[in-house]
Amino acid sequence: MNRADHHVVIVGGGFAGLTAARALDLAGVRVTLIDRRNHHLFQPLLYQVATAGLSAPDIAAPLRHILRRQANVVVHLGEVVGVDLGAASVRLAAGTAMKYDSLLLATGATHSYFGHDEWAEHAPGLKTVGDALDLRQKLLLAFERAEATDDPVERTAWLSFAIIGAGPTGVELAGTLAEIARHTLKSEFRRIDPASARVRLIEAGERVLPSFPPDLTQKARAQLERLGVEVLTGRPVTHIDANGYRLGETYVPARTVVWAAGVQASPLGRALGSPVDRAGRVQVGPDLTIPGHQNVFVLGDLASVSQNGKPVPGIAPAAKQMGRYAAAAIRARLRGQPPPTFRYRDFGNWATIGRMAAVVHFGRIKLYGLLAWWGWLAAHVFFLIGFRNRFVVLTNWAMAYWTYRRAARVIAEQPSGAPHFPQKGDT
Amino acid sequence: MNRADHHVVIVGGGFAGLTAARALDLAGVRVTLIDRRNHHLFQPLLYQVATAGLSAPDIAAPLRHILRRQANVVVHLGEVVGVDLGAASVRLAAGTAMKYDSLLLATGATHSYFGHDEWAEHAPGLKTVGDALDLRQKLLLAFERAEATDDPVERTAWLSFAIIGAGPTGVELAGTLAEIARHTLKSEFRRIDPASARVRLIEAGERVLPSFPPDLTQKARAQLERLGVEVLTGRPVTHIDANGYRLGETYVPARTVVWAAGVQASPLGRALGSPVDRAGRVQVGPDLTIPGHQNVFVLGDLASVSQNGKPVPGIAPAAKQMGRYAAAAIRARLRGQPPPTFRYRDFGNWATIGRMAAVVHFGRIKLYGLLAWWGWLAAHVFFLIGFRNRFVVLTNWAMAYWTYRRAARVIAEQPSGAPHFPQKGDT
Repeated sequence: MNRADHHVVIVGGGFAGLTAARALDLAGVRVTLIDRRNHHLFQPLLYQVATAGLSAPDIAAPLRHILRRQANVVVHLGEVVGVDLGAASVRLAAGTAMKYDSLLLATGATHSYFGHDEWAEHAPGLKTVGDALDLRQKLLLAFERAEATDDPVERTAWLSFAIIGAGPTGVELAGTLAEIARHTLKSEFRRIDPASARVRLIEAGERVLPSFPPDLTQKARAQLERLGVEVLTGRPVTHIDANGYRLGETYVPARTVVWAAGVQASPLGRALGSPVDRAGRVQVGPDLTIPGHQNVFVLGDLASVSQNGKPVPGIAPAAKQMGRYAAAAIRARLRGQPPPTFRYRDFGNWATIGRMAAVVHFGRIKLYGLLAWWGWLAAHVFFLIGFRNRFVVLTNWAMAYWTYRRAARVIAEQPSGAPHFPQKGDT
Repeated sequence: MNRADHHVVIVGGGFAGLTAARALDLAGVRVTLIDRRNHHLFQPLLYQVATAGLSAPDIAAPLRHILRRQANVVVHLGEVVGVDLGAASVRLAAGTAMKYDSLLLATGATHSYFGHDEWAEHAPGLKTVGDALDLRQKLLLAFERAEATDDPVERTAWLSFAIIGAGPTGVELAGTLAEIARHTLKSEFRRIDPASARVRLIEAGERVLPSFPPDLTQKARAQLERLGVEVLTGRPVTHIDANGYRLGETYVPARTVVWAAGVQASPLGRALGSPVDRAGRVQVGPDLTIPGHQNVFVLGDLASVSQNGKPVPGIAPAAKQMGRYAAAAIRARLRGQPPPTFRYRDFGNWATIGRMAAVVHFGRIKLYGLLAWWGWLAAHVFFLIGFRNRFVVLTNWAMAYWTYRRAARVIAEQPSGAPHFPQKGDT
């Protein structure tokens, strides 16, 4: 096949898709990158947008801008709703189809409520910029409502926060929220003491950060408790509504519940018709393609692949490695060579907890506390796209950690000019 | 009256209201500041948020945070819907009432469509953070739609922008939008040339920036045209719909129309029952109070007051002076002294146009071009609240002016996960 005619369609501009597009620079192929959103999002810092430490543009950059110098790439803002493997084309929500020679599916994952989709409106999750801005508004307004009410029962419910799921996102949110209540909002209210807010981190499993070894898990838990988080493990939530949640036999009134418990792969995975795992991730071979279609790659959180008996984790470094691999495999095939086998390189497991606290597990190295936090910060800021963003994020962080202030505490009103207190059922 | 029992209610946390609250520090009175929004907004830079140069938190700070050390101030997030002068109380949207001893009304102004409210959905204005984020999305999506369509007529309509009204906001928006089309988006699109976008600034009156002397108006027009803006004066718009607008006899297809033509005072002005001018501003005496109510002040854009036969302009420095004056008048009355007369000090008329271009008129001084721009920048950044904000805004500006990049080009998706192309009628 003529290389210049080879059309690579990449669906999803996250870590996997964007890395693949960049790695196909000068490959002599045409590339179309399709995303529903106009920006690449640095998802590991999204919890900072939700907790008003960063503004959305600090961690998001327009895909067109990132790829503007790469003449072989077309960025298309649109939504892919299906794949026709026989015709080698993707179907767009706008009704059109687009042919591909190689297809890279990297549409990531979304929340899973384990069959309780009715919980979604009461316990929003955190995956997109929109989610983060909604959650920021919800968190800030809860303190406003507590200040405004004269009813002590109402007030307690507004000052009761629950984060469900103690993976990295849940731990980050709980730690930061406790910090906001205890320090950031200090002396700003006249009728309530924000420090009296209860921040609960609820986990159905036996421990927080289950992907870490037990001793680091213990350290993480101790650090969370020092920040003022109540950690409840081995306690599944059995019901959530607008006014609270049920924990075993007890109904706990709480107006702010955040879902960080489960993810499922983007529905495009199932739409492919190839075998998927329980979470909807597409089972791919050691070359990250689906059976019978050597030109259809599935990457990042959408892919289920194991190595040495261990699943490759759904984290940014793994997604980037998959993107780089897929580009290399396409280049090899166009040269008529067999593609290499994907080999995941583990750069460790990192989680931050809050003010100067983190845990890091990397081979035989286990770190926690301040040192781990510095490592976490360096790694995350280094990988942010764009010099300006790194600079702004570091500045914001430095200011926030010196002063406990958070720069982005803006509640943008609804365009309708509606009152700014959320109604029951609002997300 | 016992000073500690004196309750000052301030409605509106803009320049007038916030300045008054601060000036009442240590006055020995109780102060309640009521606002529908949780933040003070530095409105003179709002056009930068709309044009993706700044993020909203860069120019907005939580009122609670600004006033946290002032123990005599309570910040209340809520909406005042009426004033009962007889009972000396304000009515809140939540249904409650609040008594005052002194009342300061400073709820500002909003857009006026001169009786054509049906234009509002097609030609949004720019007054709030929500307006700015909506407008940013509209502007960025217009280029995406132009890139996506195959129909040349559609494409032209998407690349046709109109700003209606050539006051300071209209001029700033038109200049910045032309800069985005010609420079910022350069080489990011593959099918359209963003520089081919037509940016029209349409004014019913005879000249742009009518509050400036004619020679500076001429300079401003020349600077706009150099940036690529088509300036049409003496041309009233007679119709606006989702697909374009009518200019005299000609219907011009345009998918993006922005309203910067008229303002009217907040409806709370009329609700007071005191005489108002044509724009709904409350006519106040030389002590900024309404007739018969020496304890009811009206401040900022909501007030109509003249001095030496000239109306005091609706700009931030005037609002701040009014706020400071009202605080001084209350202090004087509590000491049993007659209040001073309000005297507006004119610090000049400033307007920025775009890249290193501005006009300044201050007494006999008339500046334009680069020098005026530096003056404008210095004055505006100096008055921004908070060291961090000044620093971030200056950094953003420096980066934007060296590189033409704009930092905040994020289109946040709708929470519903709806497709990201606006439908007809969306604002």
